[in-house]
Amino acid sequence: MNNFDYKNPTKIIFGKDTIKNLATEIPKDAKILMLFGGGSIKKNGVYEQVTAALKDFQVTEMGGIPPNPEYDVLIKAIDIIKSENITYLLAVGGGSVIDGTKFISAAALYEGDPWDMVMNRKPNTVAIPFGAVLTLPATGSEMNSGAVITRRALKMKIPIGGPALFPQFSILDPTVVRSIPSKQIANGLADSFTHVLEQYVTFPIGALLQDRFSESVMQTIIEVAPKIMADPNDYQAASNFMWSCTMALNGLLQKGVPTDWAIHAIGHELTALYNIDHARTLAIITKSHYTFNFESKKEKLAQLAERVFAIKVGDTESKAIAAIEKIDAFYHSIGIATKLSEYVDEYEGTAELIEEKFTKMGMTGIGENKTLTPENVKEIVKMSY
Amino acid sequence: MNNFDYKNPTKIIFGKDTIKNLATEIPKDAKILMLFGGGSIKKNGVYEQVTAALKDFQVTEMGGIPPNPEYDVLIKAIDIIKSENITYLLAVGGGSVIDGTKFISAAALYEGDPWDMVMNRKPNTVAIPFGAVLTLPATGSEMNSGAVITRRALKMKIPIGGPALFPQFSILDPTVVRSIPSKQIANGLADSFTHVLEQYVTFPIGALLQDRFSESVMQTIIEVAPKIMADPNDYQAASNFMWSCTMALNGLLQKGVPTDWAIHAIGHELTALYNIDHARTLAIITKSHYTFNFESKKEKLAQLAERVFAIKVGDTESKAIAAIEKIDAFYHSIGIATKLSEYVDEYEGTAELIEEKFTKMGMTGIGENKTLTPENVKEIVKMSY
Repeated sequence: MNNFDYKNPTKIIFGKDTIKNLATEIPKDAKILMLFGGGSIKKNGVYEQVTAALKDFQVTEMGGIPPNPEYDVLIKAIDIIKSENITYLLAVGGGSVIDGTKFISAAALYEGDPWDMVMNRKPNTVAIPFGAVLTLPATGSEMNSGAVITRRALKMKIPIGGPALFPQFSILDPTVVRSIPSKQIANGLADSFTHVLEQYVTFPIGALLQDRFSESVMQTIIEVAPKIMADPNDYQAASNFMWSCTMALNGLLQKGVPTDWAIHAIGHELTALYNIDHARTLAIITKSHYTFNFESKKEKLAQLAERVFAIKVGDTESKAIAAIEKIDAFYHSIGIATKLSEYVDEYEGTAELIEEKFTKMGMTGIGENKTLTPENVKEIVKMSY
Repeated sequence: MNNFDYKNPTKIIFGKDTIKNLATEIPKDAKILMLFGGGSIKKNGVYEQVTAALKDFQVTEMGGIPPNPEYDVLIKAIDIIKSENITYLLAVGGGSVIDGTKFISAAALYEGDPWDMVMNRKPNTVAIPFGAVLTLPATGSEMNSGAVITRRALKMKIPIGGPALFPQFSILDPTVVRSIPSKQIANGLADSFTHVLEQYVTFPIGALLQDRFSESVMQTIIEVAPKIMADPNDYQAASNFMWSCTMALNGLLQKGVPTDWAIHAIGHELTALYNIDHARTLAIITKSHYTFNFESKKEKLAQLAERVFAIKVGDTESKAIAAIEKIDAFYHSIGIATKLSEYVDEYEGTAELIEEKFTKMGMTGIGENKTLTPENVKEIVKMSY
């Protein structure tokens, strides 16, 4: 097991009818900027619950945070924060709204051009305090200190993060799941599942408990996936789905173990190029990434086969191959296509475009061994066509 | 799944050679009271590492915190804190030293008789900040906000707790395990294992992920137990043992599920009466508690049998019985006797003594269903002779 530091100060308020607890989590004298997305919260009752809970606060609203939160949109919040003397941010939405809120919380206090803050990749240690009401289980952003920002004009998706970017609290009410479109539930399942894969399918390092925790999250996602896809009103399935998404990426699973994140790095490029849903880009890349890097990953893949997919016979290689097929079948079982050509007609040249981008960015090595070159990435993307 | 709140702000610093990081976790101008136990830290090198790390701080030392931290000893720290203007406490030890430090941190700022603070059972919201260097994996106190205090003159063990009693940081260096006597390693294994049982062997509530996390901790403890008992220098086993003990009782497993804690409540009485090691009192009570409450616990016991002990055949009852036997066998496998008569010659009358104590304390119902009466407890203790 590797040495590690672990601290996660976010307070989770989990369960039915918990949005009404919002008021007690925010300082009484706060001037709140409430951020949300395309307006689904006005249809599913969340907006009413939030505004009712905040009736004694001064609240300014800013809707329209898009999926893959766009720099040019987010930056407009800074002016509102200054003109309204905002002291607290509240994200009401899914990972994109929460990620966008994280960027805004740090950018509002950054001295200089906020884009420099994004590009300099220094940990964010100063930010306006913020909380979240989660409406879409998927990214884990509600209980971690990371975010990914998109700048479409530059075709870039860039991660930011730092200790100031933990939400002070996040409210997780699983009843929100019943109004989520089935396509987005599938995205949440695939996203959270792949988050665990990125922290698990690397090489063995004797971190027995972390391995079992990762397997626990994957087993739970696999178990609830058909139930929540069939009936988003199933509260038991929704609550397990929601808690699994949070635990998949709140930092715990990755402590003391190597992590990969190459699937995410490559997937982000597919979103930047073609605007494919984040979760689906991960599903596109996973199989070819594991096939390309089979030798270094086969032991963990075989353990995954045994413990999560109950494949007990065969040697390491055959189990590992079976695991890759089972992962691909899981994505398909929730209606997610795993080939780029199923999303994009003009896909030829994509691999070269990404290779060129990574080369230009100076990317020297990704994956758990930091050995994957832009040329390797090109091969992986080609295998994903 | 039940609704829950979860927040755990303790920073964990885990791994080899991490004690030297101590200085960066404590405010530069802190006046530190360093608390420790019987002096084993002066033999195993921990004392030297701690004092070297704190060479630029003003440090006062107070050793002699006993196992089952004794009120009459702890209370002496209050005078030192006042006379030396102490602003920060550092626990260097196992659960007893950390629990004692938690009591001291709250008692030093309590207005009135500290014993009233213990007995009024209100959550502690004010305390002197403190950190810990863990020398004995077992209780999980290094990452939770609870403590148990003993007052031998009254034959009482009383739990205290509250949000102010989270350590600000805890340093977990698994190399400390190599100098722990094998009897205490066994205690740590039994203690942490029983912590998980108390949060798991209740009734099913559809908390799929929490169940799997609990099973993960138990599987890991079972897997590393023979290795660490055979060779405390096995760093891989030691690190998994240490991290499992912390995760067993840092609050995560019990969120959203019913919990029992009757084994602890009864076990505490055996320690108060006969000074039996805490972990061993748990091992004494477990089997008879599960046998006495078989009907309400059999479903979770059967799930435990299937998933942790790989017992795949039989009906619910037979699997549940097998689980009870396997738990008992686990205690025996690490050299822990599970009958009161193996610890105490004059055990007759113990059940009645505890019944009387619980009646006098006004205990109306313990266990996950809050239904166990003092008379039930008497029966359970009799079955444990």
